[in-house]
Amino acid sequence: MSDFAPHDFPAGSVWLVGAGPGDPELLTRKAERLIRAASVIFHDALVGPAILDFAGAAARLVYVGKRSGRHSRDQKTIDQLIVEAALAGDRVVRLKGGDPSIFGRATEELEACRAAGVLVQICPGITAASAAAASLGTSLTLRGLARKLVFVTAHARAGEALELDWKALADSQTTLAVYMGKAAAPQLSARLIAAGLPGATPVALVENASLPGERVLQTRLDLLPLAARTALGDGPAVLLIGEAMRPIAGEVLEAARDYLALAEPNRGI
Amino acid sequence: MSDFAPHDFPAGSVWLVGAGPGDPELLTRKAERLIRAASVIFHDALVGPAILDFAGAAARLVYVGKRSGRHSRDQKTIDQLIVEAALAGDRVVRLKGGDPSIFGRATEELEACRAAGVLVQICPGITAASAAAASLGTSLTLRGLARKLVFVTAHARAGEALELDWKALADSQTTLAVYMGKAAAPQLSARLIAAGLPGATPVALVENASLPGERVLQTRLDLLPLAARTALGDGPAVLLIGEAMRPIAGEVLEAARDYLALAEPNRGI
Repeated sequence: MSDFAPHDFPAGSVWLVGAGPGDPELLTRKAERLIRAASVIFHDALVGPAILDFAGAAARLVYVGKRSGRHSRDQKTIDQLIVEAALAGDRVVRLKGGDPSIFGRATEELEACRAAGVLVQICPGITAASAAAASLGTSLTLRGLARKLVFVTAHARAGEALELDWKALADSQTTLAVYMGKAAAPQLSARLIAAGLPGATPVALVENASLPGERVLQTRLDLLPLAARTALGDGPAVLLIGEAMRPIAGEVLEAARDYLALAEPNRGI
Repeated sequence: MSDFAPHDFPAGSVWLVGAGPGDPELLTRKAERLIRAASVIFHDALVGPAILDFAGAAARLVYVGKRSGRHSRDQKTIDQLIVEAALAGDRVVRLKGGDPSIFGRATEELEACRAAGVLVQICPGITAASAAAASLGTSLTLRGLARKLVFVTAHARAGEALELDWKALADSQTTLAVYMGKAAAPQLSARLIAAGLPGATPVALVENASLPGERVLQTRLDLLPLAARTALGDGPAVLLIGEAMRPIAGEVLEAARDYLALAEPNRGI
């Protein structure tokens, strides 16, 4: 257990810490301090490995990665492990990729701690959409053009269809950030176009944002299924859809138009 | 000028750096490094003052705060100052509150740099909604209940009405984060209720998130104008609206119900 006892991290308490997108430099200074002070760290697959290097030599690192389709039972186990460690007097860090408050399932862990009388606090992190925009060198919002920013997750439980309010999402004044959107790319493309978003809407797909294996793909909404199928690897990805992506996508969009004109001359793009 | 020359920050280049919500501990490690290495730092009112303490002793700090209603002209001046400093061989940091890509008007500065042939990069920051959620100890998303997260800004140009797609925003499965929403609170409350969002929807208002002067106010949508008028100061604030705020708002919502039952017994809440 750590000898170091910061005022805001008493033994027997828990911090849900945002690890950000993966690059250890994109950790906040506070997250670094809490990780150094922790006696036990519960982490999962979305946390960049270099970030665990900040852990103290005596800290226990516990991998609690979840397998797809078994979320409900596994989440309860994680809640229980966190609470047990706190009740045993540990300084517990629960390290989550990105920001714990955005698609991080923080609620279950917060409630489990509070139900057990365990002090639990949140340290925010850089969320994937911010990291992806930074990598692309673009803004997610544009005055007058993209005034609304919408985050959704395209991760459905195993066997469940993706249920989203497509009509509300298909808004040309919105930038849509889709977390875990790679597998759902064909469905996203088809449903958003059916709901009225132009097929020529620019799309950026950023995989492993901020990590050495980062890959960026620029395309347009109607070509997204093709792009997602052929060009990307296994890492977590965020899809950014909307006119805010146009300033960085000029040449790509021209190439796509030429491609479509050859492939489908009667399509009228 | 700084003697320190990191590989990704050559003389004559620009970084748009997210300063986060204000607490210097919520700066990323990368932002800290870039601020230390800068020879000139352009900052505004939304940057927490303690963050400027990281600047090197020889760095020039230039305040470029904007006055409301004069944005267009002032933004051009800022663009010009940034470009001129880079062309003069400075290592330029443009420090912005929160995340540069989210309502940070990064686009103008990116385009000005690129038009002048100046290398410009983005270092992301913790956005206000993440910081506010962390301060509240709550998640912005809830599985099955608040699956969509929407960011809008309620800052209208002087003399302009707030134009938002109220019907799309009034979605009970959404968490709505309104940046700079304090002045617009009465309008937000009235328009969202008129568009179908229940008056009893929980609302959290966080002012100066993460700073020593942080103030949190919990209320419900129909009581928001009253709360915003009576309870808050001058700092930047973010409004979080939606069912995701309910777990932390239990007692406040009960008190509000009692208050309304006394004040308006025939209202039928």
